[in-house]
Amino acid sequence: MGRVTERRRVIRIRDGAVSTRPDTLVAEEPLEIRLNGKPLAITMRTPGDDFALAAGFLVSEGVLGRADELANIVYCAGATQDGSNTYNVVDVTLAPGVPVPDITLERNVYTTSSCGLCGKASLDAVRTTARWPLADGLEDAGGSAVRLDPETLSVLPDRLRAAQRVFDRTGGLHAAALFSPDGELLDLREDVGRHNAVDKLVGRALQQGLLPLSGSVLMVSGRASFELAQKAVMAGIPVLAAVSAPSSLAVDLAAETGLTLVGFLRGTSMNVYAGEQRLALRTAVGGA
Amino acid sequence: MGRVTERRRVIRIRDGAVSTRPDTLVAEEPLEIRLNGKPLAITMRTPGDDFALAAGFLVSEGVLGRADELANIVYCAGATQDGSNTYNVVDVTLAPGVPVPDITLERNVYTTSSCGLCGKASLDAVRTTARWPLADGLEDAGGSAVRLDPETLSVLPDRLRAAQRVFDRTGGLHAAALFSPDGELLDLREDVGRHNAVDKLVGRALQQGLLPLSGSVLMVSGRASFELAQKAVMAGIPVLAAVSAPSSLAVDLAAETGLTLVGFLRGTSMNVYAGEQRLALRTAVGGA
Repeated sequence: MGRVTERRRVIRIRDGAVSTRPDTLVAEEPLEIRLNGKPLAITMRTPGDDFALAAGFLVSEGVLGRADELANIVYCAGATQDGSNTYNVVDVTLAPGVPVPDITLERNVYTTSSCGLCGKASLDAVRTTARWPLADGLEDAGGSAVRLDPETLSVLPDRLRAAQRVFDRTGGLHAAALFSPDGELLDLREDVGRHNAVDKLVGRALQQGLLPLSGSVLMVSGRASFELAQKAVMAGIPVLAAVSAPSSLAVDLAAETGLTLVGFLRGTSMNVYAGEQRLALRTAVGGA
Repeated sequence: MGRVTERRRVIRIRDGAVSTRPDTLVAEEPLEIRLNGKPLAITMRTPGDDFALAAGFLVSEGVLGRADELANIVYCAGATQDGSNTYNVVDVTLAPGVPVPDITLERNVYTTSSCGLCGKASLDAVRTTARWPLADGLEDAGGSAVRLDPETLSVLPDRLRAAQRVFDRTGGLHAAALFSPDGELLDLREDVGRHNAVDKLVGRALQQGLLPLSGSVLMVSGRASFELAQKAVMAGIPVLAAVSAPSSLAVDLAAETGLTLVGFLRGTSMNVYAGEQRLALRTAVGGA
């Protein structure tokens, strides 16, 4: 499970000069997630934290919400013709009594798409299946209220980058981190897929009995897609901050669910797209 | 279909100063792709070029290879409760006699995952289903040989960026472009999902009868994942160049299939991970 990076030979060209040397690349391998023995989804991921990834994926899908709903996660042997264990197939067994979702064709299309949900119906579905609805910012799920100072937010990107162990070596990883409202780094995961990095964070939190993550801020190294906003909502995370741009649907979902969505968080500069009631803004919000 | 960007209200914070103004965001909407009436996949995409996206997706999946294999693509009405057309569902009808893939559970898991293929079996599957195997670089599929000068490659990122119409406004789009071997821009597509941008390029080429794209270079604005390398191979594209890092599996696939894979293409600096026989290297390749 330590295959986070791999070495490959590379030909470097610098101003016409050619040399050959070994290079460190981010590892990418497929992971098949099975639920009670049945194939549910395949994702391209960076190996490591695979059980957390599977658990977090199932939180995002609304299947899991508490550690005691999860009976067991194992690697499946026999996925290859020679019967060896590739460590690329995991099987999640739910605790007795936990509802198993119908893996119908439609269900399957939905869960394995890159979004997980679809259009107008999807926004309704997120609202319906979220176990811990985000409140108005004064009282979140779990009873704790998150109030953030923009100055605290402004230090998160540097802390995220300082904590990233692999990115600077390969340039190929997305990072996701959980911070406390006063800017303390709680956990950090990296993956070749940004959604996997978030699922790994959420899955570890589930395993540690920390869901809902109502007292935390999710920070991601890239853009804020609908999918990432959805994962934050499903885990009860009240604040999502991204280094880059959000999409229109991410903003719409944030506005509908009460998620605080911050984009282009760079130094003391940031854009707030929804949920500004959680931010302590020292000057009145007015037209530019 | 012109919903490439959308406007939303944003609160800007700059060094403590707070103002409110409209902001331009990249549009993100789900697209359900149906094949002969049956749901096949859902992808989160930027609206526009939806028929090309669906066609290119089916090229990547090995279903389509020629324009005359495609009978029809239409938007489906009635996907919402009020029966209106969301322009988020397209149905692709294959020409008579074109084999329709089995949409079994397994097939479905594979096609709708973010990778499309799985592990050891996947590399075999790409080799099997690729209609136009890449040759050794001296004679590609279609009979044309691509030879590239690194100096030509070095101008592609600037040309890609200059041609990007939306990126600078939203900061939220991936770009994919086709170039001729002498650096002429042939086509450019942008999308919130990098795989969609490539599918849109390939789908348009299919519709114009240009497959296989054996005389072209695919340039992407971000990283080179396994998925993007696979899409290049399936479209018969012999060279994939990326601004950022490749993954280990992308390099492995390139080496297996004969794809030329260039990463970290920035100015006169680049890394060549596979298929260097297509590059005119003026100095001998030697150890650093």
